[in-house]
Amino acid sequence: MTDRPGLFDPVLARGDTRAAVADDAWVAALLEVEAALAAAAADVGTLDREDADAIAEACRSPVDASALGEQAAASGNPVVPLVAHLRGALSDAAASGVHRGATSQDVMDTAAMLVARAAIGAITADLRTAADAAAGLAVAHRDRPAAGRTLLQQAAPITFGLRAAGWCSGLDAAADALAAWRPAVQLGGAVGTLAAFDGHGRGVRAALARRLGLVDPPLAWHTERGRIAELAGLLGRAGAAVGSVATDLVLLAQTEVGEVREDVPGRGGSSTLPHKRNPVAAVSARAAALAAPGLVASVLTAASLHEHERAAGPWHAEWRPLTELLRTVGSGAAWLADAVTHLVVDPDRVAASLDVTGGLLLAEQATTGLRERLGHAAAKDLVSAAASTAQDEHRPFADVLAEALAGLENPPADPAAEVRALLDPARAVGEAAALVDDLLRSRNPQHPDEHADRGARPRNTEETP
Amino acid sequence: MTDRPGLFDPVLARGDTRAAVADDAWVAALLEVEAALAAAAADVGTLDREDADAIAEACRSPVDASALGEQAAASGNPVVPLVAHLRGALSDAAASGVHRGATSQDVMDTAAMLVARAAIGAITADLRTAADAAAGLAVAHRDRPAAGRTLLQQAAPITFGLRAAGWCSGLDAAADALAAWRPAVQLGGAVGTLAAFDGHGRGVRAALARRLGLVDPPLAWHTERGRIAELAGLLGRAGAAVGSVATDLVLLAQTEVGEVREDVPGRGGSSTLPHKRNPVAAVSARAAALAAPGLVASVLTAASLHEHERAAGPWHAEWRPLTELLRTVGSGAAWLADAVTHLVVDPDRVAASLDVTGGLLLAEQATTGLRERLGHAAAKDLVSAAASTAQDEHRPFADVLAEALAGLENPPADPAAEVRALLDPARAVGEAAALVDDLLRSRNPQHPDEHADRGARPRNTEETP
Amino acid sequence: MTDRPGLFDPVLARGDTRAAVADDAWVAALLEVEAALAAAAADVGTLDREDADAIAEACRSPVDASALGEQAAASGNPVVPLVAHLRGALSDAAASGVHRGATSQDVMDTAAMLVARAAIGAITADLRTAADAAAGLAVAHRDRPAAGRTLLQQAAPITFGLRAAGWCSGLDAAADALAAWRPAVQLGGAVGTLAAFDGHGRGVRAALARRLGLVDPPLAWHTERGRIAELAGLLGRAGAAVGSVATDLVLLAQTEVGEVREDVPGRGGSSTLPHKRNPVAAVSARAAALAAPGLVASVLTAASLHEHERAAGPWHAEWRPLTELLRTVGSGAAWLADAVTHLVVDPDRVAASLDVTGGLLLAEQATTGLRERLGHAAAKDLVSAAASTAQDEHRPFADVLAEALAGLENPPADPAAEVRALLDPARAVGEAAALVDDLLRSRNPQHPDEHADRGARPRNTEETP
Amino acid sequence: MTDRPGLFDPVLARGDTRAAVADDAWVAALLEVEAALAAAAADVGTLDREDADAIAEACRSPVDASALGEQAAASGNPVVPLVAHLRGALSDAAASGVHRGATSQDVMDTAAMLVARAAIGAITADLRTAADAAAGLAVAHRDRPAAGRTLLQQAAPITFGLRAAGWCSGLDAAADALAAWRPAVQLGGAVGTLAAFDGHGRGVRAALARRLGLVDPPLAWHTERGRIAELAGLLGRAGAAVGSVATDLVLLAQTEVGEVREDVPGRGGSSTLPHKRNPVAAVSARAAALAAPGLVASVLTAASLHEHERAAGPWHAEWRPLTELLRTVGSGAAWLADAVTHLVVDPDRVAASLDVTGGLLLAEQATTGLRERLGHAAAKDLVSAAASTAQDEHRPFADVLAEALAGLENPPADPAAEVRALLDPARAVGEAAALVDDLLRSRNPQHPDEHADRGARPRNTEETP
Repeated sequence: MTDRPGLFDPVLARGDTRAAVADDAWVAALLEVEAALAAAAADVGTLDREDADAIAEACRSPVDASALGEQAAASGNPVVPLVAHLRGALSDAAASGVHRGATSQDVMDTAAMLVARAAIGAITADLRTAADAAAGLAVAHRDRPAAGRTLLQQAAPITFGLRAAGWCSGLDAAADALAAWRPAVQLGGAVGTLAAFDGHGRGVRAALARRLGLVDPPLAWHTERGRIAELAGLLGRAGAAVGSVATDLVLLAQTEVGEVREDVPGRGGSSTLPHKRNPVAAVSARAAALAAPGLVASVLTAASLHEHERAAGPWHAEWRPLTELLRTVGSGAAWLADAVTHLVVDPDRVAASLDVTGGLLLAEQATTGLRERLGHAAAKDLVSAAASTAQDEHRPFADVLAEALAGLENPPADPAAEVRALLDPARAVGEAAALVDDLLRSRNPQHPDEHADRGARPRNTEETP
Repeated sequence: MTDRPGLFDPVLARGDTRAAVADDAWVAALLEVEAALAAAAADVGTLDREDADAIAEACRSPVDASALGEQAAASGNPVVPLVAHLRGALSDAAASGVHRGATSQDVMDTAAMLVARAAIGAITADLRTAADAAAGLAVAHRDRPAAGRTLLQQAAPITFGLRAAGWCSGLDAAADALAAWRPAVQLGGAVGTLAAFDGHGRGVRAALARRLGLVDPPLAWHTERGRIAELAGLLGRAGAAVGSVATDLVLLAQTEVGEVREDVPGRGGSSTLPHKRNPVAAVSARAAALAAPGLVASVLTAASLHEHERAAGPWHAEWRPLTELLRTVGSGAAWLADAVTHLVVDPDRVAASLDVTGGLLLAEQATTGLRERLGHAAAKDLVSAAASTAQDEHRPFADVLAEALAGLENPPADPAAEVRALLDPARAVGEAAALVDDLLRSRNPQHPDEHADRGARPRNTEETP
Repeated sequence: MTDRPGLFDPVLARGDTRAAVADDAWVAALLEVEAALAAAAADVGTLDREDADAIAEACRSPVDASALGEQAAASGNPVVPLVAHLRGALSDAAASGVHRGATSQDVMDTAAMLVARAAIGAITADLRTAADAAAGLAVAHRDRPAAGRTLLQQAAPITFGLRAAGWCSGLDAAADALAAWRPAVQLGGAVGTLAAFDGHGRGVRAALARRLGLVDPPLAWHTERGRIAELAGLLGRAGAAVGSVATDLVLLAQTEVGEVREDVPGRGGSSTLPHKRNPVAAVSARAAALAAPGLVASVLTAASLHEHERAAGPWHAEWRPLTELLRTVGSGAAWLADAVTHLVVDPDRVAASLDVTGGLLLAEQATTGLRERLGHAAAKDLVSAAASTAQDEHRPFADVLAEALAGLENPPADPAAEVRALLDPARAVGEAAALVDDLLRSRNPQHPDEHADRGARPRNTEETP
Repeated sequence: MTDRPGLFDPVLARGDTRAAVADDAWVAALLEVEAALAAAAADVGTLDREDADAIAEACRSPVDASALGEQAAASGNPVVPLVAHLRGALSDAAASGVHRGATSQDVMDTAAMLVARAAIGAITADLRTAADAAAGLAVAHRDRPAAGRTLLQQAAPITFGLRAAGWCSGLDAAADALAAWRPAVQLGGAVGTLAAFDGHGRGVRAALARRLGLVDPPLAWHTERGRIAELAGLLGRAGAAVGSVATDLVLLAQTEVGEVREDVPGRGGSSTLPHKRNPVAAVSARAAALAAPGLVASVLTAASLHEHERAAGPWHAEWRPLTELLRTVGSGAAWLADAVTHLVVDPDRVAASLDVTGGLLLAEQATTGLRERLGHAAAKDLVSAAASTAQDEHRPFADVLAEALAGLENPPADPAAEVRALLDPARAVGEAAALVDDLLRSRNPQHPDEHADRGARPRNTEETP
């Protein structure tokens, strides 16, 4: 029932994360923890294995999340009615083994770890898909000159490959950081002393951790929310990585720039505006990312306020913002993976951008190139004057510069050819190619130095140049 | 289907706001806007009334929110498939009148106004319920001395009535501010020019506003999100009002303080810990409030980034955070209304708190009271010495002070009686009663000066003193 | 000393707000409150006028903010050492009248109101300057067709005037909302009972409010931070208004768009990149706005947590975020005022943008225009086919469309002229001009209907078309 | 000049972090980077060593931060005027080597890394001081029973040692995480291609990283702000750790609880309220922590929006929030270190808290203890009935329970003694001691099992029990 997407979900809760954090996934995680807790008790000998098995069996029957939620209001959390439900379905002996020694928060927090782990799996997978696609673009466009922009003004040439390598780098790092997060089991009983475990609490905790593949922490962390705060920070970072790349994509897809577009048939078009090709995936990725920082703040605020042995509000205040944060970052990652894998680079438009200023973008290179011939000061003066003239008279900088060269006492043999060379963007991209190679080699040590065979094949299609 | 609560909803999405912002409510609002838009077109004569009526009829059939959501992914919003759905259900003539001249955002934004208005209705109702209950407590406990606390240290006496009047004041102001928010119709067409309305756009907009009871703004506000930002701020303020009162309640309900408890049979108890009476409502109200500021930030961030005629992400980034913000503030208001209306004040514990310091709380008053007899400096010295002795020797301050008075050259006739008078908290509450009266009169000009009949009757029960 | 700007201030703390919230301004406000408090006591007769005058005189001597800050650490706030300082400078009689009856928070909060009021004055002045300049642009470019963009794709024509009217509208509304905020006096004494005022507390409070021009609230609001939360929300809204307009400006100033630039000699240029004209003011306005939502969240979080009579942390947690929020919104408003008043619109580039798609932007209008001749379906098919051909063959849409018209059975006499009319953007801007007039009239009821004399004269210069 | 604290600094910018992030520290870092950049160029042979030395010498002269800030407004950042200043102080040859190949953001970002590294050093030192002090408390109070509280209600006994171990654990983890953050050098030139380094850019970058002790990243990260986002997350986590412990301290220091107090002569007292001992350090730590989450959101928001090669606003939007975030977390850590190292635990009040419920806190243990004698159901009924009677009649639970035992058919020989044993809190703390030992051993593998010599000596004083 909760598996059906909500009204805004396909736009704002894209990808596998939605199911991973859905109510049903939460209930399944709660049941998994209760089953593992009983099994762990059996592992250390404080519960009959048979009873543990019966409990595990009971935990395999699905439980209606909505009904559970309704019953949760009296106690403030859904574990209380869940335990009652499980006990009601079991013999007295097995029933007494359900939830033994634990407090509701033990089960909720451990389940939250399972939910978060699954969600992170989905998020990192999507981040890596996007990063791989970006790496593919970096290979494919390694040497393609493009306009570099600072403060949204064209500044100097880059390569499209370097731009894509930057995307790859940020997405890789965000995925690596998320993947390194280590969820831990929560077990402390009512106040963290394990008092109701008859001296076997630490043993049960270790067994539970083993069974669930979670870290076994030295203490309960009912009110020490470092792990949650850390997770929020990592998700914030992932959201930022997504947001920044998505922002690039929507800007590059602008009608006036047009260097990229998303190529998904049937999406982003407009029946009334036939020229429009909305970059729906990048726009949606950006929207998802923009919601993340506030949610990080909500989670951190709650984490800052936990008091005593279990908190009066800050704990409950974590559930929705954390779930929503996982969901929105997951949505952003899924849309971005979609956007980058379907990205079409338009070489003509990339080249056209470089021409928008009529060569002014290369003015600095021209100055450098003329230094030997004219000396630094004279070169700078000549180029600056040509630039001013070009701007004032709305003429191509290249033409004005060629005239200026022709007017020198010692003009070059072919001023136009000289200017073409001076303003060749491919000569102005510095170490861009080597930087791309460095990045690709850092993510894949087998990355060969030879350009021809480089790295992962792009999943992207490309228009003919 | 979306009407069933989710797993966390009964705890974190309490009250009527949940339904007001549910998917079904959004879809209903979208349909209401489309119907009203057609009717408005008929009002200005650009659509046959009969076609408008047919559209209105089609808009009365419910639409599945989840299916709509799934279809929304291709275009990025649910209005596109909703319009297709409506057109498919109508004759060609009526179909051509559906959504005429409008853009998706016109309908989404106007529907958001309707959703927000309904949610605000629920939120303000709950805030007022809580405020009324607090006013009742202010009346009932107008003259009851209680310990005032600063920096969580007892500082000087107040009255319980003044404390409750403070709650009332904050909740009233938050409700008033929310209730004064004025939602507006959105209508601009694709880029805000009303170009597809054949010159009747402003007329249709005015008619639409009239029909929906919304403000008719001079311009479309597709990317001018002042109203949304304003709403976020007001909700943030309401959340703060809720959070602050709820924090008081959980602190006053502490085992060591025990001045109040929530009296809802079957809630907040513990089978294994019979002495526990968890203030579930106040805890849940606090949890809801803590999530609000981050969501306000998310909404404001989106509002800050809208560009050009309609935004590439910031608009979509508004939907979930705004919905979630309404929901969490609504939940907080509902729980707080529950908490305050069910609040039981324990006069014994209120009085006991005043005695915790053995009268030290009244030391300043004692100094003042002895000034005439001893002069300011001597009075201060005597009281300070007695306070130090009482603290060092763990003896009641009153006893030490009585001994000190008895040891004076000119001792009072009955030092113990003198001390009782000096340390009478009722004499130390300044203008508390008048302040309560002022506040109650400000919210109800008919509030009589006579204490006996004052104001609204409390809905609270009270233990016998 | 604190008057000298910090390293980042000229970029991030622009305008008059910086001085209004500087340490010296805070100290001056604290002194103003202490002086007014003494005068208010004299007004109600609890202090000799002569002593009040002596206190006022003492409050006119400047106090070193840094030294005060250092002494504040022992008590947690700067009022304690300030009062000690004032008393030390006065006769015993006058000294005993300093701060009489008040608590530190009374003075700090009232001073915060004065600081905020001054800052808001600066902020609203800058917002209005920006709004007036935008209104000027709306007048000057009322009928200039421009490309309208949705999701950063060109969508349909607008007028530049309508765009500027949108800016004006958002800035006006933000300024109006801020200007309507009503600061209030704070006076309650240690726990809000006015106990140390000998029954004259409410009178002193009213006199204090009168003297400072502040609202006289019915209760102390030591822990009821609605006014602060409201202020934070209003500043968040103002920040959003600034951010949204600034985002438009940096996008319109992009090298590839170039419809606007900031014209401030000596600013934004680059010695090595002569073609660059960085829109420094808009960039800085945007940077300032982006910092606001998080600070709003910080202020709201603190407001949500105030407990009992005076709070253990949440109060102190307000000072820096609120100061910083005022500062950053003030900086944004100042930079934006600078940006809009110095904005140069380039009519050629505005026109050029409309041509980027070769007329595709007008496809919808062409369809409408051909409906009578061809019927709706055939018109749509013909236009769509022409649009596809134009895009596929990289040819101007106008040319392809003219060919298609020429190939009809019943071709128009002059297909090219027909196409020019069909694709005339001035005919596609709907009610843009009327909308601009409406907006200008709403802000200035004297705004004449006649275009020639409309509204405020723009302070903007304009290049010749 | 900027070294003098501001008005709020001693309260809200405590500790060494303030100086580490002050304007002067920023300017010093900028100069350090420019010097190291020149030296790195000499390292790879693109600059004469002599010129590099001259530049280093020039960078040793202090530069006025305020003047630099004023000059920064024209370009938008302080590096532009700083470079001009340096060049003006050098010979032509050396001047031409200043800042060679770099862009302003290279220097600002690298300097930010240096500033952040120094601040993190101060923050982690304070966090570790606090953690060590908490470990000392854990040792000293390892076996001291105390009331455990959930939802601010007493729930079951813990040990004070376990509580302190929990503090230690959270602070350790936050410090470890911050200390593991790896700052990186930034070097890319105008658009990240290293174009102005004549092919030696990567070599200069590596040399610069080596000289500054920073990571040498494969690419420039001008708009890939993962490191900044990561840092914000880590600071958010540290703030949460501080806030949570500080919240415990202010709650435990409440007048009605009084289990701890801060013992710093001359601080936190009140001349008029002699009984007040405000926990100034914990309150200030809490205030600092509450401001952090919003600032994290601001930094993450900016990080999410960086576009193209260098960003139009989001970069500038980082400076103040990041600086302020470091400052507030540093202040919180410094105050918390102060609070915990000066914490006095009052054993009498700790014991008294356990008695507040008259033994009800041990009801669960009593049930368990009577199970053998009475069977589970009868034991539970007897205890529940006694608990109800005790609460209803306001009598000590122990007395009522002893009466109930005495009234059994088979009463114990000495019911009062039996009850004392049943209600002994030391028997109800489960594995608390072992948990403390585990935690201490995990932070110090040499931690002996013998209690007598355990771990670090507490710096805390302790009142005699």
